[in-house]
Amino acid sequence: MTEISGFKKFSELARPALRKELERAVASSAEHGTPDLHEMITYQLGWSGENAGLRAEGKQIRPLLVLLACQAGGGDWKNALPAAAAVELIHNFSLVHDDIEDNGEVRRGRPTIWKVWGEAQAINTGDAIFALAYASLVNLVEKTSPEIGLQAGKIFHQTCLRLTQGQHLDIAFEDQEHVELDSYWPMVGGKTAALLAFSLEVGALCASVTPEIQAHYRDFGHNLGMSFQVQDDILGIWGAEEQIGKSNTGDLVTRKKTLPVLYGLAQGKTFYEGWNEGEITPEKALVLSQILEAEGGRAYAQSAADRLTDLALTALENANPEGEAGRILRELAKKLLKRQD
Amino acid sequence: MTEISGFKKFSELARPALRKELERAVASSAEHGTPDLHEMITYQLGWSGENAGLRAEGKQIRPLLVLLACQAGGGDWKNALPAAAAVELIHNFSLVHDDIEDNGEVRRGRPTIWKVWGEAQAINTGDAIFALAYASLVNLVEKTSPEIGLQAGKIFHQTCLRLTQGQHLDIAFEDQEHVELDSYWPMVGGKTAALLAFSLEVGALCASVTPEIQAHYRDFGHNLGMSFQVQDDILGIWGAEEQIGKSNTGDLVTRKKTLPVLYGLAQGKTFYEGWNEGEITPEKALVLSQILEAEGGRAYAQSAADRLTDLALTALENANPEGEAGRILRELAKKLLKRQD
Repeated sequence: MTEISGFKKFSELARPALRKELERAVASSAEHGTPDLHEMITYQLGWSGENAGLRAEGKQIRPLLVLLACQAGGGDWKNALPAAAAVELIHNFSLVHDDIEDNGEVRRGRPTIWKVWGEAQAINTGDAIFALAYASLVNLVEKTSPEIGLQAGKIFHQTCLRLTQGQHLDIAFEDQEHVELDSYWPMVGGKTAALLAFSLEVGALCASVTPEIQAHYRDFGHNLGMSFQVQDDILGIWGAEEQIGKSNTGDLVTRKKTLPVLYGLAQGKTFYEGWNEGEITPEKALVLSQILEAEGGRAYAQSAADRLTDLALTALENANPEGEAGRILRELAKKLLKRQD
Repeated sequence: MTEISGFKKFSELARPALRKELERAVASSAEHGTPDLHEMITYQLGWSGENAGLRAEGKQIRPLLVLLACQAGGGDWKNALPAAAAVELIHNFSLVHDDIEDNGEVRRGRPTIWKVWGEAQAINTGDAIFALAYASLVNLVEKTSPEIGLQAGKIFHQTCLRLTQGQHLDIAFEDQEHVELDSYWPMVGGKTAALLAFSLEVGALCASVTPEIQAHYRDFGHNLGMSFQVQDDILGIWGAEEQIGKSNTGDLVTRKKTLPVLYGLAQGKTFYEGWNEGEITPEKALVLSQILEAEGGRAYAQSAADRLTDLALTALENANPEGEAGRILRELAKKLLKRQD
């Protein structure tokens, strides 16, 4: 992400507080004779091990969105810190398990947990991070109210379930020869959009906004996530190499069933035939990407992304985010959604 | 477990209600286009697939203990159903992941989830069950209060973390050549005792008992779990085949670092040498079990089990469980702990 002055400033202000909240949340994992478990967790969070540091920590967009939504909803962002930590922990839990499930060997420039400590410990470390996320969320009641704590818990459970439902579909798609175009949406809705929707919603909830405003924040997060994912799908096939930091057409080589691909397969024409004709080499991928574009896959996905971006920006305006935090949210949304003013 | 009239009667009364509560808890896993995920979950719970039924469901001792503690604490067991369902779900979550981590191929007479659907889906199904457990616990507030709901949530998080800490140590012990005798206790405290402690505590909490009584129930569950595990360790080496349903000395053949084994290794005598001398065949295991008994491993473990049983029964008396449910709890404890009146 290129620099956004307001967001960068807020990030520099908030990240040390978030780090402190996360440290508080994971401290108990070292108790009962398990310092090694604590180490595996801090490795995943980017705090320990080789190449620990900012890159290994990741961008932390989601927890920062929690805090911004709270402030923009008229609250004090510091009150939402336990929820922000919970979001960051659940995100990391899902990364740990996804990397095992997808056989991913590198994450944020470092070997994944299962590569370092083996699969059994990695599954268990993910579980521990899951439990710690819930434990952090409970701390919300310290600075809000039992009602807000309980409501946050309720939507958090639904979010975690949605994450696993999205992942279930994603894994299933890999083995399925035929995947319906429409089944893309519940998959991405679970894998990408659910946690972003929760991040915005819980932040606003911590500011005690009305249920209507809370729903607007949730819709903003949901559509932001959906649009962002579709754009990521487009970049994974047609993105310039320097722009996405990996080889373009890469998603075709790995046979990822992204939105443009599902659209192309549904047409049953030349792309469909090429996809089903043996291995996809980088050379073949380049040809396939041109065929897919000619058959309308790129335009279809771009139009879906545009529609979702509109929905996201409308929801954000309906949420009426206040002050400097509101300004940053608007800026960040446009940046993430690649929309110029 | 042989028949216990009072417990059996209660079990027949309560299990259909528990089943209904569990069905309510897992229903949402089928939403968002994921009926297959729901099927994996109901398979794990013993409701669907080949050989579905009572054996596949398991004994459900833990959730029944939740309900009994609530009734014995002066409450109505039905109010604790969401907590009982949460306990049963967390237990099943841990079984799904343990079976992957330990390479276990059969569970309750059926192929384990990862054997049927592969590792990736199995990891994810465990995660979904984890999320559903939390979602079920939230339903506690319907029949209790926000305060009880929040307190139950808090001790549930700690319990889930303890489960992963115990599992972490268990996995680590497998690879470690030298395991300290004392590290056995935090391992078993997490793997076996934590969920039993929670089961009794949350049941009593649902009955709004005093914090002192609640602590007695927790201590009862904790020591019940510890004692039960040590006795299981003894049976795994010296149990009669017909009694434990698997070959005796089996735990020596698989090199399981149980309490008697850790004691024997700490002595550094003949058992220690035999253990470190290559593969342990069933024949060698029989000889080793005799050596271990002669070197005091069996007596040491038995005395630990006796001490823990005393602690469990004392805690139960301090909890002063009421009425028929109290009578059943006492009966069940003595039966599980193999203590005659």
